[in-house]
Amino acid sequence: MSERPTSTTSNDTIVFSSDTELSLIRGSTYVGEGSRTGVPIEQSTPSLQQTVARTKQRSWAIERSMLARLLKAVGHPAIRIVLWDGAEARGQESDNLRTMTILNRRALWNLVRAPDYYMPEGYMRGDIVIDGDLIEFMQEVNRSYRTEWTRGNALRRAWEGRSLLKAKRNISHHYDLGNDFYKLWLDEQLVYTCAYFESPEASLEAAQVAKMDHVCRKLQLQPGEHVIEAGCGWGALALHMAKHYGVHVRAFNVSKEQVRYARERTQQEGFAGQVEFIEDDWRNITGKCDAFVSVGMLEHVGPENCQRLGDVIHTSLEQHGRGLIHTIGMNYNQQFNRWIEDRIFPGAQPPSLRQMLDVFEPHDFSVIDVENLRPHYALTLRHWLERFERSLPKVREMYDEQFIRMWRMYLGASASAFETGGLQLFQVVFLPASRPDYPWTREHLYWTAQRATRLSPK
Amino acid sequence: MSERPTSTTSNDTIVFSSDTELSLIRGSTYVGEGSRTGVPIEQSTPSLQQTVARTKQRSWAIERSMLARLLKAVGHPAIRIVLWDGAEARGQESDNLRTMTILNRRALWNLVRAPDYYMPEGYMRGDIVIDGDLIEFMQEVNRSYRTEWTRGNALRRAWEGRSLLKAKRNISHHYDLGNDFYKLWLDEQLVYTCAYFESPEASLEAAQVAKMDHVCRKLQLQPGEHVIEAGCGWGALALHMAKHYGVHVRAFNVSKEQVRYARERTQQEGFAGQVEFIEDDWRNITGKCDAFVSVGMLEHVGPENCQRLGDVIHTSLEQHGRGLIHTIGMNYNQQFNRWIEDRIFPGAQPPSLRQMLDVFEPHDFSVIDVENLRPHYALTLRHWLERFERSLPKVREMYDEQFIRMWRMYLGASASAFETGGLQLFQVVFLPASRPDYPWTREHLYWTAQRATRLSPK
Repeated sequence: MSERPTSTTSNDTIVFSSDTELSLIRGSTYVGEGSRTGVPIEQSTPSLQQTVARTKQRSWAIERSMLARLLKAVGHPAIRIVLWDGAEARGQESDNLRTMTILNRRALWNLVRAPDYYMPEGYMRGDIVIDGDLIEFMQEVNRSYRTEWTRGNALRRAWEGRSLLKAKRNISHHYDLGNDFYKLWLDEQLVYTCAYFESPEASLEAAQVAKMDHVCRKLQLQPGEHVIEAGCGWGALALHMAKHYGVHVRAFNVSKEQVRYARERTQQEGFAGQVEFIEDDWRNITGKCDAFVSVGMLEHVGPENCQRLGDVIHTSLEQHGRGLIHTIGMNYNQQFNRWIEDRIFPGAQPPSLRQMLDVFEPHDFSVIDVENLRPHYALTLRHWLERFERSLPKVREMYDEQFIRMWRMYLGASASAFETGGLQLFQVVFLPASRPDYPWTREHLYWTAQRATRLSPK
Repeated sequence: MSERPTSTTSNDTIVFSSDTELSLIRGSTYVGEGSRTGVPIEQSTPSLQQTVARTKQRSWAIERSMLARLLKAVGHPAIRIVLWDGAEARGQESDNLRTMTILNRRALWNLVRAPDYYMPEGYMRGDIVIDGDLIEFMQEVNRSYRTEWTRGNALRRAWEGRSLLKAKRNISHHYDLGNDFYKLWLDEQLVYTCAYFESPEASLEAAQVAKMDHVCRKLQLQPGEHVIEAGCGWGALALHMAKHYGVHVRAFNVSKEQVRYARERTQQEGFAGQVEFIEDDWRNITGKCDAFVSVGMLEHVGPENCQRLGDVIHTSLEQHGRGLIHTIGMNYNQQFNRWIEDRIFPGAQPPSLRQMLDVFEPHDFSVIDVENLRPHYALTLRHWLERFERSLPKVREMYDEQFIRMWRMYLGASASAFETGGLQLFQVVFLPASRPDYPWTREHLYWTAQRATRLSPK
């Protein structure tokens, strides 16, 4: 075993003790067990060649031929894939070939079997190393590789459920990681959704405030109105609406940690009388409202529940009301990346526009405005990744290197997906069909003078 | 027969000679045969009571009871329905009850059988009279009456076809009525699609220019680029793009009259070298382009052909290209009003957003921006109707009173449908999925300074 370049988990023992046992790991669930080097991956690269050189286990001919198959499967991107013994294959020729090194047999066989899943997984485990800029590597692959178009709504994992109980567990998995962790790399208000950069040079803080204003202006909020928010995160938007637009907000969220934080902050800032945080699922929303807003929740609701969300909105929204849904989306019905779903967001499934229409059509809502903010989410993710990397010393006090690689891959792969078109960010404004008095043009969203729609500070 | 208040067609004879023959007219096709009074309907109202009073034929009990059934079927709007003998029924109480008078038995029985069709048909034939403002009456009905939601794409008349030959005939039916007729009530450039009013006070002429600029800015046109336009009407947009944005345009249209007009105008204005008009169907589009635009054609393409249109766009559009489709639409899949389709636009079927996605999804186009300009189309139609009424003396030199009532109903009912939400106007911008460099925000569409995107006049 001493010949092996890495020894991250006991699973490896099974795989490498006998090649015939490769099949044993199919479907096995890996549990992180400690860090590998204590140094971020990009810094470990220099010593990698030495590590690989020490490997005695030669790759087989079939494994080397697998590389060509793999490159074909992902559409021949301009990348170089190197095996543990130095064998390599190249995709499309380029002056700027990007290199991925596969450090062991298990990682290769898994990768060939399910590249969508085992590329990020192998990276997370430390079995796959990517030289240079992670986002650029992912972009190169994403540009040539498109997953299949899934016609219809039948999604493989829908049955696994986003029931009330399961939804709470799913959300808890991700959002209850601890506020201290998110504080390290989100903006100061902990807004964990796509920002809106009025120019690409804007700060993340400014862009998150601009996003909240953009949403409020699209909703045409008037002082004294009542707003229901479904999925409120750490409460920044709810507080923003109350503070700057003078509305009353009832905000729903199943994450205990987030709701506690939101309540405390709102109390401290003196808006507890105007904003109520309710630790409950969107399915249990009650009451009427002039505006219904949901930012970054539909991804977790699941396409099979879109119609039910529409029912909830229909019941809540007054006839003169306005609605806005802000969500990650896709160009067509498509299975969400399984790795992201397993490791990062259990139960998540960004909808296509087609699936989103299940919210609006049954109740004759008119779609008034759809804005695709895809490049804004790519930039938001780049800001988060940069802050995350800057905060690594503090992250290390909380989590191991495997977690760090996982998080880096999640943020980097997501940025790449938004940049290359695998993911979209839809902001949809809708109204009851017969509502006549929505603003004449969208100019009010842009004229800086119209910021006067915000209240003066108290 | 002298007792009958009106005698528009020989069909009436059949109906009134024997009530048992009512069934004979079911499915019969009416052909207009001359004017009734030579006076516009709204002016004929004062004498109507007298006319009705002369009727000897009393309504039956079953007919009077039909009125309640009819009011229920359309959701109890605040209207009063009066029969030829003065019998009446009222919907929801209101200080402002609007009155519709049914002048004969045939019109009533037809109306009960298929109100969507026989209300406008009866109005056109002069068998139904509406007091006061036609649009307001239609709004009152539209607000309470919603047609059924048709799930899926199976549209009753799809088989009747929008084949190449049929499409040409359909378009010819409407658009080849004669340029002289359209000149009477469209704007000076003959733009026969929804205008864009930067404010409701803008003139129709200004609003049509603003619409063309809005489209050009959404398409990010650059001088020297190549544009393909599918369905170009009388050529105003093609010429506008060439003149003000310096692009080369190839514009397709199956209407002979429109193409001839467009060619002449473009020749006169000196842009024949930059704009080519091709008298052909969108299915025969060839060549590559930097921008693909279609304004007001998808309504005629039919939902069953959306995917094929997507194929054509995919073949034409360069990887860096931009596309825009501007079309009348619906909140959900729904049969277009049969009367409008029979009388006005054969083969037309405005798509729902869901149906429109068949254009974009199969080729992984990203939907970037959807703007619903519904109130702008309502106002456009009100302008057209006003101009049409002002031009009645000249219209009368071309067409009979029945045509005039038909056209009035078409424009008025359409305005009402856009105002009350039965029809939408979608402007959709889309890009190949991987295209990275679309403008950062939509602010460039609104800043007046950005009009500088237009070229200086030559």
